[in-house]
Amino acid sequence: MPVSRRQCANAIRALAIDAIEKAHSGHPGAPLGMADMAEALWRHGFRHNPADPAWFNRDRFVLSNGHASMLLYSLLHLTGYALSAEDLAQFRQWGSLTPGHPEYGHTPGVDITTGPLGSGIASAVGMALAERLLATRFNRPGHTIVDHRTYVFLGDGCLMEGLSHEACSLAGVWKLGKLIALYDSNGISIDGKVTGWFTEDVAARFKAYGWQVIGPVDGHDCDALDQAIAAARGDEDRPSLIICNTHIGFGSGLEDSEKSHGAPLGAEMAAAAKAALGWEAEPFVIPEDIAKAWDAREEGARLEQTWQDALVAYRQAYPELWEEFTRRLDGTLPAQTDQILADFVKKAQEAQEKVATRVASKNVLSVLVPALPELIGGSADLSGSVGTKTASSTILDPAVYEGNYICYGVREFGMGCIMNGLAVHGGFIPYAGTFMVFSDYAKHAIRLASLMHLRVIWVLTHDSYAVGEDGPTHQPIEHLNMLRSLPNCDLWRPCDSEECAAAWQAALGRHNPTCLSLSRQGLPFVAKPAQADIARGGYVVRDCDGTPDIILLGTGSEVSLCLGAADVLAAAGTRVRVVSMPCCTVFDAQDADYREAVLPSAVRTRLAVEASWPDYWRRYVGLDGDVLGIDHFGASAPGSVLAGEFGFTVDAVVARARALLA
Amino acid sequence: MPVSRRQCANAIRALAIDAIEKAHSGHPGAPLGMADMAEALWRHGFRHNPADPAWFNRDRFVLSNGHASMLLYSLLHLTGYALSAEDLAQFRQWGSLTPGHPEYGHTPGVDITTGPLGSGIASAVGMALAERLLATRFNRPGHTIVDHRTYVFLGDGCLMEGLSHEACSLAGVWKLGKLIALYDSNGISIDGKVTGWFTEDVAARFKAYGWQVIGPVDGHDCDALDQAIAAARGDEDRPSLIICNTHIGFGSGLEDSEKSHGAPLGAEMAAAAKAALGWEAEPFVIPEDIAKAWDAREEGARLEQTWQDALVAYRQAYPELWEEFTRRLDGTLPAQTDQILADFVKKAQEAQEKVATRVASKNVLSVLVPALPELIGGSADLSGSVGTKTASSTILDPAVYEGNYICYGVREFGMGCIMNGLAVHGGFIPYAGTFMVFSDYAKHAIRLASLMHLRVIWVLTHDSYAVGEDGPTHQPIEHLNMLRSLPNCDLWRPCDSEECAAAWQAALGRHNPTCLSLSRQGLPFVAKPAQADIARGGYVVRDCDGTPDIILLGTGSEVSLCLGAADVLAAAGTRVRVVSMPCCTVFDAQDADYREAVLPSAVRTRLAVEASWPDYWRRYVGLDGDVLGIDHFGASAPGSVLAGEFGFTVDAVVARARALLA
Repeated sequence: MPVSRRQCANAIRALAIDAIEKAHSGHPGAPLGMADMAEALWRHGFRHNPADPAWFNRDRFVLSNGHASMLLYSLLHLTGYALSAEDLAQFRQWGSLTPGHPEYGHTPGVDITTGPLGSGIASAVGMALAERLLATRFNRPGHTIVDHRTYVFLGDGCLMEGLSHEACSLAGVWKLGKLIALYDSNGISIDGKVTGWFTEDVAARFKAYGWQVIGPVDGHDCDALDQAIAAARGDEDRPSLIICNTHIGFGSGLEDSEKSHGAPLGAEMAAAAKAALGWEAEPFVIPEDIAKAWDAREEGARLEQTWQDALVAYRQAYPELWEEFTRRLDGTLPAQTDQILADFVKKAQEAQEKVATRVASKNVLSVLVPALPELIGGSADLSGSVGTKTASSTILDPAVYEGNYICYGVREFGMGCIMNGLAVHGGFIPYAGTFMVFSDYAKHAIRLASLMHLRVIWVLTHDSYAVGEDGPTHQPIEHLNMLRSLPNCDLWRPCDSEECAAAWQAALGRHNPTCLSLSRQGLPFVAKPAQADIARGGYVVRDCDGTPDIILLGTGSEVSLCLGAADVLAAAGTRVRVVSMPCCTVFDAQDADYREAVLPSAVRTRLAVEASWPDYWRRYVGLDGDVLGIDHFGASAPGSVLAGEFGFTVDAVVARARALLA
Repeated sequence: MPVSRRQCANAIRALAIDAIEKAHSGHPGAPLGMADMAEALWRHGFRHNPADPAWFNRDRFVLSNGHASMLLYSLLHLTGYALSAEDLAQFRQWGSLTPGHPEYGHTPGVDITTGPLGSGIASAVGMALAERLLATRFNRPGHTIVDHRTYVFLGDGCLMEGLSHEACSLAGVWKLGKLIALYDSNGISIDGKVTGWFTEDVAARFKAYGWQVIGPVDGHDCDALDQAIAAARGDEDRPSLIICNTHIGFGSGLEDSEKSHGAPLGAEMAAAAKAALGWEAEPFVIPEDIAKAWDAREEGARLEQTWQDALVAYRQAYPELWEEFTRRLDGTLPAQTDQILADFVKKAQEAQEKVATRVASKNVLSVLVPALPELIGGSADLSGSVGTKTASSTILDPAVYEGNYICYGVREFGMGCIMNGLAVHGGFIPYAGTFMVFSDYAKHAIRLASLMHLRVIWVLTHDSYAVGEDGPTHQPIEHLNMLRSLPNCDLWRPCDSEECAAAWQAALGRHNPTCLSLSRQGLPFVAKPAQADIARGGYVVRDCDGTPDIILLGTGSEVSLCLGAADVLAAAGTRVRVVSMPCCTVFDAQDADYREAVLPSAVRTRLAVEASWPDYWRRYVGLDGDVLGIDHFGASAPGSVLAGEFGFTVDAVVARARALLA
């Protein structure tokens, strides 16, 4: 007798119970509740190859309610990924492959890191968009090499988050028909029955976004689920939301209770739950017939082989496209990238133009965008101001999925997560811009990019009080400090076109996120000594004879102030060194000799000048130095007036330096 | 002949054009587009008193699309607030009353700071909720002293932001019938026609939230607007959204163009626009008949006088309620607050209990909540974990608007802005909790609270790697640094119950936001010397004889590590001082003598220990000291295992201290 589908689903439930009990930690409610949904999807038409988790044309799976991690780990184990029963038994332990929430790059088969609610569904929109754009770019008649779906499981929490609004509204605009979301509607969140705080009509809301809404269906009825998923797959013109009515903690003594959400059932209830499910096997053991029913390796190998064969044919038919395709999937840059940037720098050095670094960034992009088809730009409704849209940028047209530029609308967080989805999917280097002060809205997207080591580039302009008239709501003060405190994330604050090109070069060359901090206002071109090596993050931009009496450190718009102050001080006989420090983290990563050469430890008279929260700079100037920063909110007035009021003038720098020297 | 309503609206348009032209900066499109909406509302049933902008029972006005500031300033000027034509002529200039975006506490009549899109409508939800809760609490038959509406103007941008989803969904749950939003639907955002990125059916979306949706109406047809506003006022069971179809830049040569959004029209077009509007007066001059038609002072005085009379009658009828009412509007605490906290501390000192500081915080709240009716708590769906719900907390019941606790659902940013609305309305001290790592989602709400000097208290728990098994997505690393870089915001990271009580006392006693950083894990009670003054933010918790060889600085969960290390070091003959620094900003604000007494400048061998991004502490330890922090993401494993792996053990502190002393 063949195993029943419920028995297959119960394998997930049993493994989830076992692992959570063993860990004395975890979230049983969601895996128990969603097991039938998972069985319906993963055993019926989900296209993947357990032997090759990185197979490009696999369907993507996003567990937006990431606390249900044991559901995903169970699926990976059952279908044949390199995730053993021993790995499951190490759930939530140091060094294991099965951390508390799914982690991209850590566990084979995990397509994206989730846990922070809403971020999964939002990034899935980016993944689904990536698929459509690549399909347009590379598929040719008779040669369909890009063709996969993005499936999402999500819960009530994801739908409460504003992030889901931003991304799902865009998914409707973009008509992402190959995005299929299964909503685990169990009516429970951590504080209890959601009727007290979540009464909206989700179906009507998603219809308003332009989605196909299917259901509600019984999320424990495999036939109903099959039909729903078929209907979703059948409509490639609209993204689909399948509303699945489920019971959290299905089969356990805490069914339908928030108490099943975030803590182990306990030995007794765990045993009872397994008995109620008719599950008799030992912990972490899957009966052979059920194991066989789940095993997706043979079918997966077949699917990938078919695709590999198609790719061979594609290579023969379209060798140039094949080359671009494989290069972009590898994430390597076009060979001419460095030369393009070198040419740009040469011209910038010749022109010595006074220019806002947001414009300098646009100028850099203007030479990069035509040469790098993997660049996909955008802005949260500030394209003109932030300089992300170049003459070679064409706005995404969802009718045909052409374009290399996305108007995200006023949706910073959604933009950030969609960029993460584009990056994690592969084939793209996303960049997008907003005012730096609104990086707040997107902070957690930048965090997730940092955690996942994604090459995502944030163009954050209007980076100080010098925003001027728009006032304190639009003037960043604390943001440089915030973004510099993010592991793996580099923040570049270039002082001119040349440093701006170096920043872009660094950003393109690393597999981690980069934030560019760019000025609204024009900044003079800075003449640099021949040996200046911007790529090292910090360098001596103006030196003196002998040991400096004082070192001035500046970034971005304050470098020219430091240089002006150095002139004044030097004229009065002070030996001044000026260090430009566009990227502190890159400078910190240099060898000790280089750092000592730039900032000799014997010279403790150091003044850092940056129009931002001053604390950060104490790591360079210590207790003996000083920082000219801003420890208060800005104000509404012309930027030049604020410069005087807030002390960002050559005179003010000279005065602070003299006070330090006295 | 009486002046026409269009002429009245054109007064707004003319003033907006004049001020923006004079400033050479600003946003003409929205004031020109919304002038008729503003006329319909402000001249017809908007209850306020220009002579007393702080009149409690006024209707509130929230300009959620805050870039339309000149609309609001014009209204304030025209209706008779202390905002002169000269003030308007100083639009966007240093020290003027008319900054680029409306600033609460700066300009008479501005009810809330706006500009960051979505935040206005979200905070308006909090303002409208405050009104309903106070009405229930204080109104008595025949004595209606709380009865006002909250009106909001908002644009496409606000509706794209996820924040609007979170807050408006809750407004539907809460049936805030006295919240009326007028949507300036002009089909244009900064990047152009919104059809490329904003195609959702807004009416259907808001109906899905449970709102009354009115329109679309012609936003330039005063009769249609009158009817719509009347219908909105007529339904007190549901919040209302009036969709007003308007033309951005109405009457100007840039009508219906995004080019009218964010830059002056220019002299020529400005003159043409005024001519087209039939406006002939000199710049900043309002013809007498139009001025008279706008003047709301007499009616405003009458409205407030009626209320003041009612309040006198109320005082006689309900003296105790009157006392609480006036006290809460003043924002003063109950007289017994300090004693309650002193009693708590005494018991904590006796009990010396090992307790997680999130539990300590709950214990403090458990004595405060019954005594402070102005406390309104809540959580973003983590009530049990973050300890914000006490035995005296009753969940908000929108059927009767009773309760002192809000289940916000998984909506951190919405929660933050709603708290800002509750605080800015008056009568409440909002506090609410989430995991510290998700403060990211709400960062900008905390920023706005800081900018507005609002007494809002954030309970941020699970404040380090010690979260343990949930892994890096749930372990804050950079957040302490982020929140400490926010002007006006204090972050307290208490080490035990006693410090926790001090933190709450400080938070309640200031008119600015406070973040509490609290542990998931149990922390030992710390014995303190008699002279320890926690309220000073930092103090010597363990000293040595003579000048210390080394000072250990710790906060929160790391204080006990420092004390343990001090024991080991002292046993080996090292003179060790330990400083507990629960609130750096409060410590920094102490007099120099006190700071010197705690951190003698002669002692440069300093080791800071905090399980967070280390840079911040360089301001205390300089270049000669060291920081034991975390400059990488966390991992999923039991917290005690991570403590060993990440070096947060007594042994590790001792080793770092010895390395520094060597």
